[in-house]
Amino acid sequence: MKIKILTLFPEMFTGFLNSSIIKRAIDEKIVEIDLVDIRLYSNDKHHHVDDTPYGGGAGMVLRVDVVSEAIKANKGEKSRVIMMSPQGVPYKEKKAYELASNEEIILLCGHYEGFDERIRSYVDEEISIGDFVLTGGELPAMCVADSVIRLLDGAITKESHLDDSFSEGLLEYPQYTRPLVYDNMEVPFVLTNGNHKEINKFRHEESLKRTFLKRPDLLKDYNLTKEDEKIIEELCKKS
Amino acid sequence: MKIKILTLFPEMFTGFLNSSIIKRAIDEKIVEIDLVDIRLYSNDKHHHVDDTPYGGGAGMVLRVDVVSEAIKANKGEKSRVIMMSPQGVPYKEKKAYELASNEEIILLCGHYEGFDERIRSYVDEEISIGDFVLTGGELPAMCVADSVIRLLDGAITKESHLDDSFSEGLLEYPQYTRPLVYDNMEVPFVLTNGNHKEINKFRHEESLKRTFLKRPDLLKDYNLTKEDEKIIEELCKKS
Repeated sequence: MKIKILTLFPEMFTGFLNSSIIKRAIDEKIVEIDLVDIRLYSNDKHHHVDDTPYGGGAGMVLRVDVVSEAIKANKGEKSRVIMMSPQGVPYKEKKAYELASNEEIILLCGHYEGFDERIRSYVDEEISIGDFVLTGGELPAMCVADSVIRLLDGAITKESHLDDSFSEGLLEYPQYTRPLVYDNMEVPFVLTNGNHKEINKFRHEESLKRTFLKRPDLLKDYNLTKEDEKIIEELCKKS
Repeated sequence: MKIKILTLFPEMFTGFLNSSIIKRAIDEKIVEIDLVDIRLYSNDKHHHVDDTPYGGGAGMVLRVDVVSEAIKANKGEKSRVIMMSPQGVPYKEKKAYELASNEEIILLCGHYEGFDERIRSYVDEEISIGDFVLTGGELPAMCVADSVIRLLDGAITKESHLDDSFSEGLLEYPQYTRPLVYDNMEVPFVLTNGNHKEINKFRHEESLKRTFLKRPDLLKDYNLTKEDEKIIEELCKKS
């Protein structure tokens, strides 16, 4: 898979590209990441990429001519162009799986006040990583790239995905490792006795419980079994 | 304000710390960022920080003894300790404002499969930036730090905050800059005629419209005026 990132600040990605799993995925040619400096597509001799907004207001706005040139020059037949924007569709794990099936995605990062509205007509979709404001689209692009790369074949072991939060629609069950006792807190006995049927039951129930307590909104998209419903009824009685 | 980041991969933050607004905020002493390597708190001679999970399963789990030592050694009287975790409370702009009022926050980043469950008893709160899975908590910590730092006095101009998406509960209105016409697309006339009353009206209505169309869920927390309600009624008729 190829991921092109269009940005005014390619240097922001240094640490990310050298981080453990991402670096290995690049070295093993599981993914190719191209950082493209939007500034190269400015025809202006001072390489300006933004200008003041029509109608007044604070900050600068990215120019449509510069950004559309950058997109056109980098877009291939199979590229999917994605604008990182707080106005986009909220990003979910399901979308990460969908993006991971593309041959090439282009992530467009803004900075400053925002994009000239007309830039939207050159992109295929808009993604937001959450309802909070950042100084630019670079961190969201790294989040999308990271979540997609880890799903590519060979990036991490397949078993790891099965344990992820959201992978089956529930939050992950509690994990424990050595030491067995710390600060008077013990590892639950069931995890130490080697009975895998009981361990799986414990983990599923704990996933269900914590989803109910912390993120009940996730349960509406989850197929509850009759057993699951009983567990939740019990929790309702207690609370 | 002081932000301490507890991580196994301090080098991942290089690009972030050198990015425009963050670098300036650090240089102007608006914020101080300490990167703390969790590995330093391992007593093990090989500096192990993780171990296999009790009960079996893929991946490694961060040890409670190592991480709690790292927290204790870095926590001051006024520190607020925040764990970055997909199980946390979904992060919103309102929380960024709340965190920006703290003297010191500590952001705890995990990696690999996750944290030993007992680590949760050493943190004040858990934040998730969204329902997707990342290889670690470093990118979420950068998102939180970035969103908080830009709110600190002097980091960016105050006027900029007023235009942000979510700052008043709506998505941002469309922005335009030069050229006036590009690819047959024109800047809306109202923005070019200098009538500020009309410009403000246009912008508010556009904010309202696009929030209604793209993120109707945000409107339930917004105080609609009678005028706003009329605009939305019109949109409903059209759609």
